[in-house]
Amino acid sequence: MNIRTLEFKNNKVRIIDQTKLPHKLEYINIDNAKDMWQAIKELKVRGAPALGAAAALGVYLGISKSKAKTFREFSHELDRTAKYLAASRPTARNLFWGIERACSIAVKNSGKSVAEIKKWILNEAFAIIEEDRRACRNIGRFGAKLIGIDETILTVCNAGILATIDYGTALGVIYRAKAEGKRPKVFSCETRPLLQGARLTTWELMKEGVDVTLISDNMAAHLMKERKIDKVVVGADRIAANGDSANKIGTLGLAVISAYHKIPFYIAAPCSTIDQGTHSGKEITIEERDGKEITDLFTDDIRILRGIEVYNPAFDVTPHELIAAIITDRGVVCPPYKENIRKLCV
Amino acid sequence: MNIRTLEFKNNKVRIIDQTKLPHKLEYINIDNAKDMWQAIKELKVRGAPALGAAAALGVYLGISKSKAKTFREFSHELDRTAKYLAASRPTARNLFWGIERACSIAVKNSGKSVAEIKKWILNEAFAIIEEDRRACRNIGRFGAKLIGIDETILTVCNAGILATIDYGTALGVIYRAKAEGKRPKVFSCETRPLLQGARLTTWELMKEGVDVTLISDNMAAHLMKERKIDKVVVGADRIAANGDSANKIGTLGLAVISAYHKIPFYIAAPCSTIDQGTHSGKEITIEERDGKEITDLFTDDIRILRGIEVYNPAFDVTPHELIAAIITDRGVVCPPYKENIRKLCV
Repeated sequence: MNIRTLEFKNNKVRIIDQTKLPHKLEYINIDNAKDMWQAIKELKVRGAPALGAAAALGVYLGISKSKAKTFREFSHELDRTAKYLAASRPTARNLFWGIERACSIAVKNSGKSVAEIKKWILNEAFAIIEEDRRACRNIGRFGAKLIGIDETILTVCNAGILATIDYGTALGVIYRAKAEGKRPKVFSCETRPLLQGARLTTWELMKEGVDVTLISDNMAAHLMKERKIDKVVVGADRIAANGDSANKIGTLGLAVISAYHKIPFYIAAPCSTIDQGTHSGKEITIEERDGKEITDLFTDDIRILRGIEVYNPAFDVTPHELIAAIITDRGVVCPPYKENIRKLCV
Repeated sequence: MNIRTLEFKNNKVRIIDQTKLPHKLEYINIDNAKDMWQAIKELKVRGAPALGAAAALGVYLGISKSKAKTFREFSHELDRTAKYLAASRPTARNLFWGIERACSIAVKNSGKSVAEIKKWILNEAFAIIEEDRRACRNIGRFGAKLIGIDETILTVCNAGILATIDYGTALGVIYRAKAEGKRPKVFSCETRPLLQGARLTTWELMKEGVDVTLISDNMAAHLMKERKIDKVVVGADRIAANGDSANKIGTLGLAVISAYHKIPFYIAAPCSTIDQGTHSGKEITIEERDGKEITDLFTDDIRILRGIEVYNPAFDVTPHELIAAIITDRGVVCPPYKENIRKLCV
């Protein structure tokens, strides 16, 4: 597709500043780990798969100017950078996975010179980028089989091009269905508080010529009751070994109302989002963000009360029993999840 | 309470312009039916019970300057005003009920002079106001029995003082629980698109010293999963004879996720919101409002795409099987609703 979420150019990571969309399409260049930490924290770059690449590149930026002479010295710096970047956001599996891959490759090449190890780390980040590109195409290919010729899909947040290197996960399924000659229609939940659905998903779907209608999050149940939704397809930030899936706040509610209205609810995510070390959703840390995200986006005349108590969890966990299938880059996983996820990840 | 949602003073209806809250507490005076239509349409006055009074007073304003000499002439003007006001918004039962009461009292006094009939209509509007005041206190009294000593209540939109003449329906239950020495805590769903929860409910609860926390609408399921909610109490705009209840968009979703998490879901509304002529929720007309309500409240730098397709239903219908009880001014109605609502309304 034509949107370039994240690229490595001239020793810098160039990303779209997603906090500016759809008002402005603005690129920023990042050349150090601190700025990458900030960009991740402030959601300038977001979406689990994109965070995997951003984090690995962030590790590279953090150590690229290292003057270490020995692996021991270098390893110390690497570890500090890794821990620093890992503290940016707690929920998305890919963030940690990207960091771990960058660190592992360094350890694997510990016998080589520091200059060479740096190259290996950068190459690992490039590998993550290429793998994500392929993974999304595969998710699209597997997922599109589940979509009928004239179906309407509900989605939340942005699990599209802007959440990945290219093509997207949940939206990749829709792009592929369209490419196959189907006519998918999309309802995009605006996704409060930061409106990734209203700002990002509608923007990229319109750019790609997909028929999209914006709703506020609390309208989904009414749409389902009116039989206006055939399928729900959303992304994931972390999938536990038993299939429980953390995703943008509001996903759990969509899964519950889908089950009530007997509408299939799908998760679309690459295997890199699966965390075999997390046994169930209970173990997933849910990020809480500043209450100002809820109160401060509005124009002055509608501005919400100052000093009000606000609770702002950024994710929730959908229990596996509400998920009809998980669409991954290695195929569609159906229940029983524990068993089938284990087989998939072998 | 100290907030005066709606009053009749110096031959004018004085209302709080609720579109300005919480930024400004601004009153406007309405002295003709056209301005009342506008105030209702633009949600300057809103909430089913308040709309009953506003509509009856609107009828009075519409005919108060009538120069009709005969009942026949007067009746023609009355009919026109009634139809005009009834076209302001389609869903809230009380709006039509208020208009019908104003018209019925005129017909009942058709033998009297036009001047006297005008007085009867105004008195009927005053009666509605007084009845609503009493009804809300009774709802509070009956409803508070359902609330435990340290419980946390989730609500949506504004079913409080600002939605009624005084005290509120759903929030009346909370005010009464507090007055009885209980310590209710409230989570208020912001209620997109127009944020009645964030702007109005939090404002009046804070004024009345109730512990309130704001969330965005899509966070409710996560709160329930975390066992942070004991009860859900919401208002209603129209209750069908079988108990199906129309209320602010998002209510259906809350009812479904409450059922999934085994949390009791209550409707609080006066009997004037029950529409025995509507057999089930299927017959309730759902107002669709301008898509700009969803896209245009935000500051420039976050403003949503222009020209985007938007769907904006203002209400949804909760099927009676998801409702644990309906708290009315005549008592708490439990299933089977059809039978028990009929008994209540005799």
